[in-house]
Parts: sequence; structure tokens; C-alpha cells
Amino acid sequence: MQQILEEIFSAIKNHELKGSVATYIPELAKIDPNKFGMYLKFLNKEAYAVGDSFVPFSIQSISKVFATALLFSKIDDDLWLRVGKEPSGNPFNSLVQLENEKGFPRNPLINSGAIVVADMLLDVLGDPANDFLHFIRHLASDDSIDYDKTVYMSEKKSGFRNIALANFMKSFGNIHNDVDEVLDFYFLMCSVRMSCQQLSEAFLLFANHGVHPITLEAIMGVSQTKRMNALMQTCGFYDEAGEFTFKVGLPGKSGVGGGIVAILPKKYSVAVWSPVLNAKGNSEAGMKALELLTTKTGFSIF
Amino acid sequence: MQQILEEIFSAIKNHELKGSVATYIPELAKIDPNKFGMYLKFLNKEAYAVGDSFVPFSIQSISKVFATALLFSKIDDDLWLRVGKEPSGNPFNSLVQLENEKGFPRNPLINSGAIVVADMLLDVLGDPANDFLHFIRHLASDDSIDYDKTVYMSEKKSGFRNIALANFMKSFGNIHNDVDEVLDFYFLMCSVRMSCQQLSEAFLLFANHGVHPITLEAIMGVSQTKRMNALMQTCGFYDEAGEFTFKVGLPGKSGVGGGIVAILPKKYSVAVWSPVLNAKGNSEAGMKALELLTTKTGFSIF
Amino acid sequence: MQQILEEIFSAIKNHELKGSVATYIPELAKIDPNKFGMYLKFLNKEAYAVGDSFVPFSIQSISKVFATALLFSKIDDDLWLRVGKEPSGNPFNSLVQLENEKGFPRNPLINSGAIVVADMLLDVLGDPANDFLHFIRHLASDDSIDYDKTVYMSEKKSGFRNIALANFMKSFGNIHNDVDEVLDFYFLMCSVRMSCQQLSEAFLLFANHGVHPITLEAIMGVSQTKRMNALMQTCGFYDEAGEFTFKVGLPGKSGVGGGIVAILPKKYSVAVWSPVLNAKGNSEAGMKALELLTTKTGFSIF
Amino acid sequence: MQQILEEIFSAIKNHELKGSVATYIPELAKIDPNKFGMYLKFLNKEAYAVGDSFVPFSIQSISKVFATALLFSKIDDDLWLRVGKEPSGNPFNSLVQLENEKGFPRNPLINSGAIVVADMLLDVLGDPANDFLHFIRHLASDDSIDYDKTVYMSEKKSGFRNIALANFMKSFGNIHNDVDEVLDFYFLMCSVRMSCQQLSEAFLLFANHGVHPITLEAIMGVSQTKRMNALMQTCGFYDEAGEFTFKVGLPGKSGVGGGIVAILPKKYSVAVWSPVLNAKGNSEAGMKALELLTTKTGFSIF
Repeated sequence: MQQILEEIFSAIKNHELKGSVATYIPELAKIDPNKFGMYLKFLNKEAYAVGDSFVPFSIQSISKVFATALLFSKIDDDLWLRVGKEPSGNPFNSLVQLENEKGFPRNPLINSGAIVVADMLLDVLGDPANDFLHFIRHLASDDSIDYDKTVYMSEKKSGFRNIALANFMKSFGNIHNDVDEVLDFYFLMCSVRMSCQQLSEAFLLFANHGVHPITLEAIMGVSQTKRMNALMQTCGFYDEAGEFTFKVGLPGKSGVGGGIVAILPKKYSVAVWSPVLNAKGNSEAGMKALELLTTKTGFSIF
Repeated sequence: MQQILEEIFSAIKNHELKGSVATYIPELAKIDPNKFGMYLKFLNKEAYAVGDSFVPFSIQSISKVFATALLFSKIDDDLWLRVGKEPSGNPFNSLVQLENEKGFPRNPLINSGAIVVADMLLDVLGDPANDFLHFIRHLASDDSIDYDKTVYMSEKKSGFRNIALANFMKSFGNIHNDVDEVLDFYFLMCSVRMSCQQLSEAFLLFANHGVHPITLEAIMGVSQTKRMNALMQTCGFYDEAGEFTFKVGLPGKSGVGGGIVAILPKKYSVAVWSPVLNAKGNSEAGMKALELLTTKTGFSIF
Repeated sequence: MQQILEEIFSAIKNHELKGSVATYIPELAKIDPNKFGMYLKFLNKEAYAVGDSFVPFSIQSISKVFATALLFSKIDDDLWLRVGKEPSGNPFNSLVQLENEKGFPRNPLINSGAIVVADMLLDVLGDPANDFLHFIRHLASDDSIDYDKTVYMSEKKSGFRNIALANFMKSFGNIHNDVDEVLDFYFLMCSVRMSCQQLSEAFLLFANHGVHPITLEAIMGVSQTKRMNALMQTCGFYDEAGEFTFKVGLPGKSGVGGGIVAILPKKYSVAVWSPVLNAKGNSEAGMKALELLTTKTGFSIF
Repeated sequence: MQQILEEIFSAIKNHELKGSVATYIPELAKIDPNKFGMYLKFLNKEAYAVGDSFVPFSIQSISKVFATALLFSKIDDDLWLRVGKEPSGNPFNSLVQLENEKGFPRNPLINSGAIVVADMLLDVLGDPANDFLHFIRHLASDDSIDYDKTVYMSEKKSGFRNIALANFMKSFGNIHNDVDEVLDFYFLMCSVRMSCQQLSEAFLLFANHGVHPITLEAIMGVSQTKRMNALMQTCGFYDEAGEFTFKVGLPGKSGVGGGIVAILPKKYSVAVWSPVLNAKGNSEAGMKALELLTTKTGFSIF
């Protein structure tokens, strides 16, 4: 497997990227576009790494998976009273569908849905900012994981579309807390910095029926885990869910920081990072790397 | 004419209203639904009044006409670089069209367009809040006109849809100032309180080729005035522009406070107030009263 | 008035057109782009003409006014059970609004609405094709008016969007007759050929409270006529209703054949023809000519 | 496995269905709602059956998988020049997205996409009706499979929405052949009758890397097969792709005739039939039966 990762690393390094780094959050635009890391860990604890796999980066939308999982583990199917489970077919920050569907977001992995999840977490958690961070640290067994206050402030200042989404849903009654508080918490969650290694550790849970791979604690139920994986499979890649399902064939989630994390149930989790995004907002080299991985290993759903 | 107004007053008093008072702004929900006033003034200074025509009420969206006129008089056709001139065909606070048209509102008499107008006024006016109030006082020749701070605060606290609209347009680059400042000014303008008598005085301008009926000052150009009247004709009544054009046949503008003001070019302006709204958000008795007016007088465009 | 028309004619001839002739119906693409005619007739029977004002051309969408008027005169307000009265805010052949509103067209002057009108006429007229032609001939007092079978066949072969609209409404139950029959009749009505002189004669009805200007027969009621004029004012110019209302300020209707006809209630009707269309599908020189007319005469609503 | 199917059969028989049989095609409304069959075949040729698993029924939209596979095997990735690969997020027969995206359907498993596939097949096949039938018979190794002319005629007479879709796409240039011919072929393909046993046989191909399980012929490439499976996973269940992915976790396709067929790659294919549909248009008992199957066997992607 180490050899396969090396081959992927080498193929990526020789491949010229056509996209560009995310610019809509000023702080993210400063990243070095040549960064690349990949980390794969099996449930049996074997792990493989190449490149910048220990360098933390902004996980952005990948945080939506952690937030949904945390909320789901607390309130179970009450989650679906305020957010759907189906792919949206629209860009991740579109308001059109939201208007037609009266403020009910299609799923928790698009911005509108994740804002509702943030709102619900505020009601469920005693100390939301700390509890969320603790949840991730616990999953990754790593207390060095933290928020990035610069990215948080940067997003807060420029996140007009998200402010619009939150207020729009508030006007339909689907945000219960103060909009500014909800958005603060949403932006904070997006600002978490993690390395490929840390993401891979934290996502092993989803490959392991909801059981923490080290403590063996049942953090989510088997059915809840299956639902999370199904959500990632159908909704994890913005407008490119179909493409990712075909090319990679694993449930996963991407973020505009350039990270992608995916799992092969009962086998492994893998995280990859390269900040240059394609036209759909997914990491260009990350998509390629995961495609090469499932091609070379033959591990894929289909 | 006094007799005609009396007949209308009597017809309205005997007519049971089916709609209800606006509730989306808590402060407006407290109004007495039985209020009714009507005031008509000719360019030759003859004036006629019935009912509560000297009682001030919240003009709400009627302020959009004053704001657009003030801006138009300052920057002329540069106005149309950031807002359109066509009817929208959608509810006044819809975001769908705005998304499809990349943050460019259809016209300045719907919420999104008026928010852009507020943004532009911030750049043009030295002291926006005072200058706007002064403009209206000058048009109505009445310095007692003022903002209603309670309504302003009430709207500011509950105007989630408008906050969404403003941030959405900001994300497209069509709001230049700080969103909160723009919205503060927008909500402030909506909170102006005027009576039918004051509205009628202030709107004589539009019946008089842009010339102030008392000072004879040319406040707007002839062509600008024609454009304002055309805008009111096609866009002044939310989803009911066609209905109003047919039933009343005069350019005008309504507000959710229950006011409607209309003009017969070169002849008169007329304001009516009754807080009960029909399903489209226009004053039910106000529509009826103006319909009776044009039927009884035979003064109509068609 | 003759002098005014001559001045307009001369201004138009010296003005270079930027648009192009309609091409979506192959037969219409063959027209000479330099044709220009204008004809104005007062209710007092005075008439003025310049250019190709006696040359018949394809009236296209102007036929929607005749069809609606004929149906309205037969079934009165039952018309509104199956079609609305408000501007659409969307291109004339859009299906989006129709889907959201379950097959109920916004007004009878856009394609979807006119197709429903055609469907209803099939139920009301004994011999639809002849009755409709007879109606127009009667209004214009001219039996030489006829369908253009070449244009009819051309449109029938290439009218995919209209076939889509009709079948879409059928799927919602808002087309009662056989779709092909309805479309045949719709395309046939669009294919009528008339000159500016004939259109002007036929539209005098709408300037005359519904009374035939020669026979003095009451073809439509006063209120029906007012409604027709209001419809033309708000919905007669596709996406350019606001622009036309401002620039010309008269109720009217345009067609992609390059014709525009408008009325000044109680005064006159005027028809203009120039086949080159602007980006919105209205005659470029026709819009200009009518704008000059109301500017030069001072006759306008505002 | 036979015992598992018996248990499912028994659970289904004791479960009261809340939905109803498809009525939009009159011929389908006549079916006995109590029919139920299920057939599962492993690649190793073991097969298990319960209920009406040898009774042919109308496969309807399941035919879209056969049509796409046949076309894909002929023209490879040229397919994607005229149809997309992503979930639509809209009802299967919506025109809204199609208008916004200029006649380019989201994927070949919704009606619009399948109509484009039918159009392309007309260009590629020598004798479309026979070639398509032959393709299915060959996959199922069963020459008794046939079209149902009554259903075909029934759908042809009432398929207004599909006629609208086809003409709409023609207006955008994305239908090349005569619209009526395309629709005839599309309706014909939908009318194929197959039993659970025949569907299960025919779908083994998709569980077997594109290789015919009996003749060992490579009918599709490995990558093409993977793409077909990814398409079924993300787009096979109308608005319920997310739900099916979660509950069943297998790539599959449903039809309004009440059939569902799904595969576990490298293992088996399974077909189930029960004509009562849920609100989303998928077989209610069929969904339940497949959910029970993956729960009881533990065979699922997640």
C-alpha cells in the first residue's frame, strides 16, 4: 500500500493542475497551491502516508460531517424534522430550492443544512464551541486540533451568502436561536484545522460501524453510521456527487480548503489534501488521487 | 367631489373586510383595523377629505417611491446600472429571481431594489437619515412628518427576509456599503409616518411633471417623472399590478401599513388608508375606494 | 399630425438599426429589413399614413389581443378561470413559471396563455378558423384580410417550444381539446397578415369603449375593454412592458413580425411596422417611432 | 437465502400498504395491487424465488438502464456530450432544471435524459425496436420477453408531460430526430414486460463487470459498468436516491410498474415487484423487501 501511495504521489506531482485555490475566503487564498498530502489508515491500525500529510489545513465543509454526526448521536432521527436526506442538485449555497421548499434544506452537508445543524447543536450542547472541538479531538485521539481564529474572522467578515441563507431560513422559522450566534458557531466549526493524518483517524469511526477504533466506545449506532455514509455517498461532493461516486466509489466529503476524506466501510479511511480546486469546488488533485487509489487497489463499491 | 368621497366612505363602511392587518412586523399588528381615511388634492389646490385622513400611519413600501425619486433626482440614469425597470412577476421578497439574475433586482419598488437604492443613497447623501426626512417634509410642505422609532426597531428585529436579501446581493457585489448600515437606513425609511393628507400633498409632484406644486421648483425632470409614474404603474402593487391597473387605472404605490397613494397626471393625487390587507398584501378597502373613485369620476387612463 | 408622422419617418430612416429580423420561424426570416410603415387613425375618422402602411405583414402575437377579445366578448369573466391577468416577469415562452403554477398561465398575451385561449375558443366557436377571421375582418371593415398558409406551415413545423407548452398544460389538465388541434388553431391565428392601416382600424375598438367605430355595435363591454387595455399596458411587450410603458405610455401589443399597435383611449389607434427586432423581441424602429409620437404630440398617459 | 426470502415474503404479506397503484398510465391502473414477487440470483448461478416472481409486469423506467447501457456500449463517452451524470434534485419529469440548463438533462435515468438516449439510439441502431428487444432478450437469455402494445398505446395517448419534455429539448437542439419518432421509441422501450426472474438475470451483467454471465461476452467495459452502477446509485430512485442508498445501500433502479432491481457488485442481482407505489413513485413493498434483504444478509455497501 505504501508503494501505491508513492505512485499516486508521483503521478500527482507530474500532473499540471488547471484550477485555482479558493478565493472567496481571503484567508484561504494565501495557501501554497503546491501542497499535497495523503494518509490512509486501516481499521487494523496499519497506516500509510505521503507528502504533507501531517500539515494541518482548514477543513471547511468537512466539519459538516462532524457536526451532523455529533448532533445525530445526540437526538437521533429528530434531526430529520428540520433537514432532509436527499441530494440537492443545486450549487451548495443556492437559495432557490430553499425558497421553493419553505426553508427546509435538502441535506445537512450543504451550507443551509449545516447552518440548521449548527442551530440545533446550540440547543443540545452545554458549551458548543468546546464540546464540538472535544468531539473531534476525541475521534482523532489528538488534543492539538484547534480552531483557526484568523480563518474564522475572515469568513465571518465575508460570508454574505451564508448570512443570507441563515436569515432566509429564520424568516421561515427554521432557525431557532439568534442568527448571529448560529452563524458564529457555523463559521467557527468550518475553521477547524486538521492534517490528513488527523482526518483519517477521526473518520475511522464511519468505517467501523460507529465504534471508536481505539476506545471501542459506540459513538454512533450502526444504523446511524450507515445513514451518515449514505449521506456522504449521495451529498458529499456538491454538484459532483455522481462523478465522485463513479470515479472513486467511496462515501466521502470534500471542503474548499482542498481536503477530501473518504472511507471504505469495514476497511479503512483515507484523507487527501491539495488546495487547488476544480470548477465544482472540489480538490482537483484530491479527486485524482482517490480515483487512482481505488483503481490501483480495486477497492471500490462497484 | 366631496360628495363622491362621502359616497365611497359610506360604501366602504358598509362593506365587510375579509383580510387581516399585517402581522409580520409586530408593531403593525397592533393597529385598529377599522381606520379609514381618504384625501384627494387637485393641482389647482382644491382638496377633499373623509374619515381618518389626518391620522399618520406607517407608510412602509410607499417610502420606496420617495427614496427612488430622491436618488433619481441626484444621479439620473446611473440608477439603472444597479437596478432594473421591469415588473418582477414574483412576490416582493422573493430571492429566486435575484439568484437567477445575479443579484440585480428587477425594479426599485420591490424590497431588493429598494435596498440597493438605500445603499446608493448612503453614497450620495451627506446626512442620509436627515436628508431623506427633509426631502419628504419638503414635498409635503410639512415639518411634522417623522420616523417612527418603535416600528423601525420592530422591523429591524424581525426583518430576516430583508437581511437575507441584502446579504445575498452583497455576495453578488451589488451592495457597496456595510450591510447593517444599509438595512438600518432601509428600515428607517420604511418607518416614516404620514397621513393621507401628507401623502397626497407629497405625491402632487408626480402629477405635476416633477415640479413642486407650491414652490414651483423643478425637483425632478419631466422625463424622470414620467419614468417614476411608469414604474408605479407597472410595479407599484406587488403581484397585483395588473389588477390595479385594470380596476383603478392610475399609477400608484401601496404599503403593508394599509396606505395607497395614486395620481392622475396633470390632475390630482389621492391617498387612502385602511389597514386590513388582501391576500396580495394591498389594502383591501383602499383598492375598493380607488376603484370606486375612478368609476364614479370617469377619470382613468383607459 | 401628418407632419409629425413625416418627421418620425425621416428620423427612423436616418437611424441605423442594430437588431435583426426574427429567424426562429424560417418564413419570417425572409422579410426585407428596411420595410417601415406607420398609420394613425382618430376616432373622428381622420387618418394619417407614412411608408409601407398598406403592406400586409405577419401580425404574429398581435393576434393574441384579437383572440382574447373575441373569447372575452363570448364568455366574459369565465376567461379568468383558466388564465391569469398579471405580468409574468419571464420570457414569453418560459415553462418555469408554468410548472410552479401548475399549468395556469400568467396572462393571455404570452404564448402559454394564448394557447389556452385557443383551446377555449375551440369550444365556443362554431367554425373557429372562419369565425376568428371574420371577427378581425369585421373589426377592420376589410374582407381582404387572410391567413398566410406558408407562415402557418412554417411555424407548425418549427414551433417546438409551443408544442412543449401546450402538452405541458395538457398534463396539468388546462388544455381540454386535442393538443394538435389547439396548436393548429393557435399557429393559424398567429399567421394572419394585416397592414398597419388594417391593424389601426381594427384596434379603434379598444380606444372606443368596445364600440365598433363604424357600425356602432357594442362588441365588448366598457369594463371588458378597460380590462383589455390594462392587459396590453402591463403584459403587451414581453420583458419590456416597463420600458414601453415609460417610453410610449400607451396600451399596446407587439409581434415578432415587427408590428406594434397601440391606442390612446378615446382618441386614436396607431400601428407601426418595421421587421428588425431588438434583443427583447420587439420592433426596434417601431418602439422608437411610438416614443417619438408621444413625445412630439404630448399625448401620453403620464 | 431461501429462508430469508420466505421471511421477507411473510413480513410483506403482513404489512398493510398505504400507497396506491400508478394511475397516470390508464393501463397500469388495472393491475392487482396484491401481487408480490422477488427473485435473487448469485453470479455463481444459485437462485432463489418467492411469490409472483415469474409473472411479467411493465418494467417502465427500468428500461432506462437497458437503453443507457446499450447506447453506452456503442458510443462510449460520447454519451455525455448530450446528457449529464449528476442527480437532479427535482421530480423525474420536471422542466424547470431543463430550462435553466438549456435542454441538457441531468442524467439518463430521468425522463428527459432517457428521451435523449432514445434519440441517440435511433441514430446508432439499424432496427431500433428489434435491436433493443434483442439486447434485453440476450441479457436475460430469454426470447419470450416482449413489448406490451396496449401499455405502449396507453402511454402514447396520455404522455403529455413526456411530449412536452421532448419538444422542449428539440427547441434547444438536443433532439435530432423527429420528435414523434423519438417518443414512439421511448414509449415502446418503457412498455417492455419482464418478470422478476428475467430482470434479475438481465441485471447480473452489472454485478459482473459488464460480462454476460452465461456467454462470458464482454458486453460493457469494466469502467462503463462501474459508471452505470454509480448512476443507479445516485440517480436510480427519483427523489428518493438518498433514502434508498441508506436503507438498501445497493445500486438499483425502480419503475412505476412497481418493479425494482438492484445489484451487489461481484455477488448477485435481485428483482422485486409489488405494484403499490409510495408518494415518491417507488414500490412501497419493494423498498421494504430490499431493506429487509440487506439487513438480514448484512450485504450492503455501508
